[in-house]
Amino acid sequence: MKIAIAQQNYSVGDFGKNATKISKAIFEAKNQNADLIVFPEMCLCGSFPFDLLQMNDFMETTMQVLQRIASESYGIAVMLGCPTYCEDEQETKVYDSAILIENGTITRRFNKKNLSHLESKYFKTDNEKNVFEWNKQKIAVCLGDDAPESENGITLCINIAAQTYKHGSKRECKQFANTSTPVIYVNQYGANTEVVYEGHSFVRNAQGETIIELPYFADGFAIYDTDKTYEPIKQEKPSDIALLHDALVMGIKDYFEKNGFKTATLGLSGGIDSAVVLSLAAEAIGSENIRVLLLPSEYSTSHSITDAEGLAKNLGVQYDIVPIKSTYSEALNALAPIFKDLPFSVAEENLQARIRGTLLMTLSNKLGNILLNTSNKSEVAVGYGTLYGDTNGSLSVLGDVYKTDVFRLARYINRDKEIIPEHTIIKPPSAELHPNQQDSDSLPNYDLLDKILYQYIECGKTQEEILSMGFDKEIVEKTTRLIKRCEFKRQQACPALRVSQKPFAERVIPLIAKF
Amino acid sequence: MKIAIAQQNYSVGDFGKNATKISKAIFEAKNQNADLIVFPEMCLCGSFPFDLLQMNDFMETTMQVLQRIASESYGIAVMLGCPTYCEDEQETKVYDSAILIENGTITRRFNKKNLSHLESKYFKTDNEKNVFEWNKQKIAVCLGDDAPESENGITLCINIAAQTYKHGSKRECKQFANTSTPVIYVNQYGANTEVVYEGHSFVRNAQGETIIELPYFADGFAIYDTDKTYEPIKQEKPSDIALLHDALVMGIKDYFEKNGFKTATLGLSGGIDSAVVLSLAAEAIGSENIRVLLLPSEYSTSHSITDAEGLAKNLGVQYDIVPIKSTYSEALNALAPIFKDLPFSVAEENLQARIRGTLLMTLSNKLGNILLNTSNKSEVAVGYGTLYGDTNGSLSVLGDVYKTDVFRLARYINRDKEIIPEHTIIKPPSAELHPNQQDSDSLPNYDLLDKILYQYIECGKTQEEILSMGFDKEIVEKTTRLIKRCEFKRQQACPALRVSQKPFAERVIPLIAKF
Repeated sequence: MKIAIAQQNYSVGDFGKNATKISKAIFEAKNQNADLIVFPEMCLCGSFPFDLLQMNDFMETTMQVLQRIASESYGIAVMLGCPTYCEDEQETKVYDSAILIENGTITRRFNKKNLSHLESKYFKTDNEKNVFEWNKQKIAVCLGDDAPESENGITLCINIAAQTYKHGSKRECKQFANTSTPVIYVNQYGANTEVVYEGHSFVRNAQGETIIELPYFADGFAIYDTDKTYEPIKQEKPSDIALLHDALVMGIKDYFEKNGFKTATLGLSGGIDSAVVLSLAAEAIGSENIRVLLLPSEYSTSHSITDAEGLAKNLGVQYDIVPIKSTYSEALNALAPIFKDLPFSVAEENLQARIRGTLLMTLSNKLGNILLNTSNKSEVAVGYGTLYGDTNGSLSVLGDVYKTDVFRLARYINRDKEIIPEHTIIKPPSAELHPNQQDSDSLPNYDLLDKILYQYIECGKTQEEILSMGFDKEIVEKTTRLIKRCEFKRQQACPALRVSQKPFAERVIPLIAKF
Repeated sequence: MKIAIAQQNYSVGDFGKNATKISKAIFEAKNQNADLIVFPEMCLCGSFPFDLLQMNDFMETTMQVLQRIASESYGIAVMLGCPTYCEDEQETKVYDSAILIENGTITRRFNKKNLSHLESKYFKTDNEKNVFEWNKQKIAVCLGDDAPESENGITLCINIAAQTYKHGSKRECKQFANTSTPVIYVNQYGANTEVVYEGHSFVRNAQGETIIELPYFADGFAIYDTDKTYEPIKQEKPSDIALLHDALVMGIKDYFEKNGFKTATLGLSGGIDSAVVLSLAAEAIGSENIRVLLLPSEYSTSHSITDAEGLAKNLGVQYDIVPIKSTYSEALNALAPIFKDLPFSVAEENLQARIRGTLLMTLSNKLGNILLNTSNKSEVAVGYGTLYGDTNGSLSVLGDVYKTDVFRLARYINRDKEIIPEHTIIKPPSAELHPNQQDSDSLPNYDLLDKILYQYIECGKTQEEILSMGFDKEIVEKTTRLIKRCEFKRQQACPALRVSQKPFAERVIPLIAKF
């Protein structure tokens, strides 16, 4: 039996485009004489639809498009994922289903069992066994993390999924650890705003060896012949930083493509964060579609301009230098009758950042260039950034990437030649909001800070547990205090590409919490 | 038997303060010879703690404070709500429990059965019967919406709750419809950031008549004597607008008190939204603690100044007039080499709003006055407001209140004397961002708009269903298109006091959704 697997990139609610992709792959599979073609979980409507799943017209459209695809699928069987109605009319939830189409007719439905908390808001489970016999095979169907049914005689597992990318962790498919049949794993790839699916579909043989592998973050198509013997693949996995880089580039690319946006802007400070964002964006949507602003203030150092210009020139990105000094002075003039002779404070520092954010948004509104946010996860964690200034943007590229990984990304971007000026990478990080300011004036060095943040955020450790690991008491206490104190900034942040094991968007802390 | 009920206001994680309030009420109940005192659901740790429930130190502290209260409770029984550990050590969830303390010892625990989807992320249910016999009574314990156990011989139901206020709906306690015993309902009141608890605890007799009633949005304490006969209360419920008014005032008050903030600021435009917010804020934290800015541009009408001044004077609020023209001109000058002779557009309109937002935040940073946001739900729904300008603020007072209700609130605020100038209420709403602009240039009138919004947001109706109700096709299509298009603005909005049946914060729509 020949089984085709199709790894594709879908958009939430864009039924026309999704169906066209699916139809093309069915056509290709028929051309290659496949008996069955398997598509990822939730491919028909895109993932994740959130409350759209509760809207009747969304579900109606899903059903119509499913019927259309079924009616066009002669001479081949198709398995694909989509939400389906529950028969109980009182039930507001739907199923997360794998649909089997045979010769133009929907013949079977398998519903996901193992739901995440988010999924359980929308989906119901049932007790039906997800097993079917077909072409002398007894096939167990698993959605996402579902374990295969424990039933005798199963000869093949098909796992359709919409699994996200998580930096530094690898997909283990533990549910098949005790399975002694081949496993076909078909995953979505592509980003829908923050959510980044990794692809990397594969086929494992009965011994658990990978025999077919599709790429990360790209289209993939393969035929698995159950009657053939395959050599195990011994290819090494790409490095963590290469994968992170590719995930972010795809995240930007899909954000623009799926929203119908063409052009981007951002503020280039001469620092490493905006340098990395610009490099990634140039790769994602092309240098010619980006126009950046250099927004020096009276506290900017001369190298901040030369470093930023160097990068823009290396990438061939159009840039303009727009000094903020006169706007800043006028704003302070307007407030002078109130401020009188109160000393320079964080108010003036934030004002600079907000004028930058405002000028960037004005450019964005005038020219239609979408503003990319350049904050990193370390800053977002400790609140080192101005709300309505540094936090501005439609998409945060690095908001889920720690500063130490931003440095690694810069090195990776420069792997073949210098794109980001070396001085940008080696100089001490600074917000340049007052004379001779450096991040290290108010924060621990990033190597140390990121280690503490990782334990607190990703690992969910308490302050006491982190202290017992040997970290400095004062630094740990300061760090956790800062994290708690700036929750309000995170609650107004723009969406950030989710690439870590614990994005801030999945962490819900009440604003009022004396604890 | 004498049962005391204590309706109090708790802060999330502020164990010291919460415990002190609880202890005081226990002391008072003992003074009045009560046999039992009942406190609301989750009173010990405050509600709602979200992910703090997954943090071990938060749960440890809860247990310690519970033990302390227990050990101090001699000569009386106490029932109170708090999260408790599940005995299964593998389990990461906890219980939402009612704890019974008798003479200094914890004797019983009753766990909530009927969990909302949000609660089910953190809480587990169990199969234990929530019934106990005590002082010749057989008492059913219900948490939140739990129905009483269907068991013979029950003589009393105790319902502890943390129920939020929802404008226009009334709490029906349907789970007791078929109950022929007295019901004691003890609810929290108070706001924790967006979440607004209404109080209004009561005792009903076996016939379902209310015989004891505590106020909305205020402390309450009463003794119910099971051996006494009570006359039913025939008092009328306050009007919807009076309740909404009180909910919002309390929301502001608690936001400031519980965060330790003293002073507020906001931009006074002469329009009705900022007028209502200022009036509510003055009531909540005192006129003397508010300092507002009038921020006229070249497009501001003269009445916008006089109306705003009139209100500030009526309330005795300090105000300053800070024209934005020179800052606006300098910002456009800075961008002139890029914009060249491109015509005036939404970019310049938004720039005015962003300069206002920036000046307000600069004042906030300099003087420590917390910025209150003045957008209403109708605007937020259709995106009629500038991101990083009109959306700025720490707390949105009206973000969950439709414009037509803002008008009703203004009338209610003026019920005894004119506080908000009549001209502010009767003039046509305008953003004044270009000459002679009125909201009705780009939006349907608010009466009509709000009806459509209510059907779409609160009632979850589809566009087709709304059309079938007889609304104009063009207006409905435009409205739903606008709602979908500005999802990105809502995702970066500040927290808004949740007072409706469907706050935007509880509606999750993916940004990328062609549907």
